[in-house]
Amino acid sequence: MTVYFDNAATTRVDPRVTELMVKIMNEDYGNPSSKYIMGLTAENYIKEAKERIASSLKVKPSEIVFTSGGTESDNMALIGTAMARKKRGKHIISCNIEHAAIYKTLEFLEKEGFEISFIGVDEKGHVDLEELKRTVRPDTILVSMMYVNNEIGAIEPIAEASRIVKSINPDCYFHTDAIQAYGKLTIRPKKEGIDLLSVSSHKIHGPKGVGFIYINEKVRIEPIIFGGGQQKDMRSGTENVPGIAGLGLAAELYSKNHEEYIKRILAVKDRLTERLEKIEGVKLNSLKGEESAPQIVSASFEGVRAEVLLHALEDKGVYVSSGSACSSNHPAISGTLKAIGVKKELLDSTLRFSFGIFNEPGEADYCSDCIEELLPVLRKYTRK
Amino acid sequence: MTVYFDNAATTRVDPRVTELMVKIMNEDYGNPSSKYIMGLTAENYIKEAKERIASSLKVKPSEIVFTSGGTESDNMALIGTAMARKKRGKHIISCNIEHAAIYKTLEFLEKEGFEISFIGVDEKGHVDLEELKRTVRPDTILVSMMYVNNEIGAIEPIAEASRIVKSINPDCYFHTDAIQAYGKLTIRPKKEGIDLLSVSSHKIHGPKGVGFIYINEKVRIEPIIFGGGQQKDMRSGTENVPGIAGLGLAAELYSKNHEEYIKRILAVKDRLTERLEKIEGVKLNSLKGEESAPQIVSASFEGVRAEVLLHALEDKGVYVSSGSACSSNHPAISGTLKAIGVKKELLDSTLRFSFGIFNEPGEADYCSDCIEELLPVLRKYTRK
Repeated sequence: MTVYFDNAATTRVDPRVTELMVKIMNEDYGNPSSKYIMGLTAENYIKEAKERIASSLKVKPSEIVFTSGGTESDNMALIGTAMARKKRGKHIISCNIEHAAIYKTLEFLEKEGFEISFIGVDEKGHVDLEELKRTVRPDTILVSMMYVNNEIGAIEPIAEASRIVKSINPDCYFHTDAIQAYGKLTIRPKKEGIDLLSVSSHKIHGPKGVGFIYINEKVRIEPIIFGGGQQKDMRSGTENVPGIAGLGLAAELYSKNHEEYIKRILAVKDRLTERLEKIEGVKLNSLKGEESAPQIVSASFEGVRAEVLLHALEDKGVYVSSGSACSSNHPAISGTLKAIGVKKELLDSTLRFSFGIFNEPGEADYCSDCIEELLPVLRKYTRK
Repeated sequence: MTVYFDNAATTRVDPRVTELMVKIMNEDYGNPSSKYIMGLTAENYIKEAKERIASSLKVKPSEIVFTSGGTESDNMALIGTAMARKKRGKHIISCNIEHAAIYKTLEFLEKEGFEISFIGVDEKGHVDLEELKRTVRPDTILVSMMYVNNEIGAIEPIAEASRIVKSINPDCYFHTDAIQAYGKLTIRPKKEGIDLLSVSSHKIHGPKGVGFIYINEKVRIEPIIFGGGQQKDMRSGTENVPGIAGLGLAAELYSKNHEEYIKRILAVKDRLTERLEKIEGVKLNSLKGEESAPQIVSASFEGVRAEVLLHALEDKGVYVSSGSACSSNHPAISGTLKAIGVKKELLDSTLRFSFGIFNEPGEADYCSDCIEELLPVLRKYTRK
C-alpha cells in the first residue's frame, strides 16, 4: 500500500489539470503577446485563470498577478512593498513562525536598512494580538502574517490582526502568506482587510512552478522582475500559459468542490487524530478538526527520532515529512515547534502528516497501524 | 495550410518533452526537498537536467541554476551581480539593441545608483568593439551583451568582446543573454570568456515558465529570490521539476541533433531569404545563411504597414511577428531597427519570420507565395 501523506510539501497534479496543460503545450502554444489569433487564445487562458481565481476569493480578476510560485509571490509582496514605500517608513512586522520565503526575504530587507519586528505566538501557534497592537508604529509600512502555519496547521486570526493594524495605522499594508490556506479555508481578502496575498499552485493539485499574488487595486507595490512589461508591467517574462491555466483550473476545482473536498480531507485528519491520540507517548501539536487547517496533523513521538520513524514508515509505503519539507535539505530544528513551546526532547521527534483530495480515511488507519507496530520496536533501539 | 513562423517568440513543446512532463506530474510528483524516495526521484530529474544542459555547453552541472525563464535569468545576472559587487564599482556596460529583460532591469539599477553605458552597433547589428574598448573602466563590474539579437538575428562577437573587456579589467564579469542563441549556435562559455549566460526553455521546444542561468564557478553573485534555500541558496522556491526535466530534455534533443536541426532550420531560412530577395521593395535586415542566426529572417516591406501584412498573412494561416513579439502588447518602434539604421519609413513596415524544428522549406514557399500575392493589393490600399 502506498500512502502519500505529504500534501503540504507538494501534491499530485489533478489529471484534469494535466490534460488541460497538455492541450495547451501541444496545440495552443502561442505567445500571449503575439498579435495573431494564437496570441489571443493564449491570452484567453490567462484571462480565464484570473477569473477563476478571482471568483474563488471574491476579488477582481485585475487584482491577480501570476508568478513562478509561492516563494516569488512572498518575495514580491515584501520587496515590492519595501521598494514602493521606503520613503514613508522602514518598519515591517512579521511573526516568529513564518516560512523561510518570508523570514529569509526579511533578512535581506534588514540588510538593506529596514527594521523588522517579529511577533510571538502562544502554545497553539496563534499570534499574540496584544503584542501586535504594541508593535505597530506610524512608520510601519507592512505587516506580513501567514494564514495557516505550514508545520502545525495553526490558523492565524488574520481579519482581527488586520483590523488592529489598520486601526492604529490605516496606511499600513497587510500581507498574508496563504500558501497552506488557499483552497482549504474560505478566504475573503476584501472583508478580512488583506491587501496582498500569496498562493502557490502545487499545494492544491496544480502544477509546480506557478503561483499568484493578489494585489488589492488600491495598493501600489513595485515589480521585482523587469522586462517585456507583461501583466501590466507587474511581472515581466513570457507568461507560463500552461502552468497558469493549470493553476486556474486547480483553483476552480478546489473552489467549486469546496465542501466535498474539505469533508474528504477532514475525514482523514479526524481518523488519524483519533488514532494517534490513543497511542502512548504521542503528543499532537495540531488542533483537532476545523480548529486548525484540515490538511495538517503534527505529532511528536516520545523516544523516537523523527527521521528514523519517517524512514521506517517509508519502508511501509507511507510518505510523511519531518518538520516542514519545503527546505528539508537544510536540517534545522523547527522554529515553529520551538515557538509553541514543544519540549526540547520532542523537537526532533516530530512528524507532519498532510492530506490531499486523493487520500482516504482507510489510509489513516493503515498509517496508524504502521506507527503502532513500529513505535515499540524503534523505541527499544533508540539510544538514550 | 498553417505555417507557424514565430518560433523566436515561442515554440511548440516537443511531444517527447510533454510526455516526460506528464509522467512526472502523474507519478513522480514528489518535492525534491523531501527525505523519502519520491524526493530523491524528483531530485534526480533535476540532476539529470543539469547534466544534459552542462554537457551541451561543456560546463559543470554545478554551474547551472534553474529559474522561471529567460527574463528571471537576465534579472538575476544583472541585479545579482550589482548586489554582490556594488562595493567594487557601480559601472555597467550593455548595448543599444538588448531585449527589454536587460534594458528595463538596467533602468531599475540606474535608479538604484548604478551608471549604465550603452554601446552602439553597425548596420549589421554588430556591436562596436572599439567603442567597447573605450568604455571599459576600472570600476566596470559587468558587461552584458546579447549573443543573438531577437529581432534581426545578428550574432554578436561575444568571445572577442569578452577578451577585450578582460584585457582592460580582468575583474569585470561578462554576461550574455543567449536566449535566441542557445541550441542554434555552438556556445562554449569557458572558451569564450562568458561568466554568466541566460537561457529560456520555451524558445527550444521546451515548456514555458522555466529557464536557467549558467554561473561560472569562480563568479559570485547574490540571489534575487529568497526562501527555503533550494539550489544551494541561489534560487529558493520548490523546484519546477516537470518544467526543469522538460527543459533538460529539450536541451539534450537540440544538442544531440544539432547538425540535423540546424540544417533543417537553415533550409527554411535560405528558401525564404531567396524568395524574399526577388520581391520588389523588400529589404532584408538579417544576414544570409549562417552569417546571422539560422532561425531568424527580418524583412522590411516598402509601402505596407507591418501590422496590416501580419494580419493578411494570418488570414492565410501564416503566423509571423512585427518587431519583437516578446512585448507586442506595448507597441513601440523597434530600438534594434533604428540602431542598425533602417530607414524611418520602413521601421513600421518590418516583419520577423522565425523557424523551429517543425518547419519545412515548403512552408517558406507558401509564405512567399502569400506575400507576393498580398503585397500589390495591400500597397494599393495603403494611404501615403
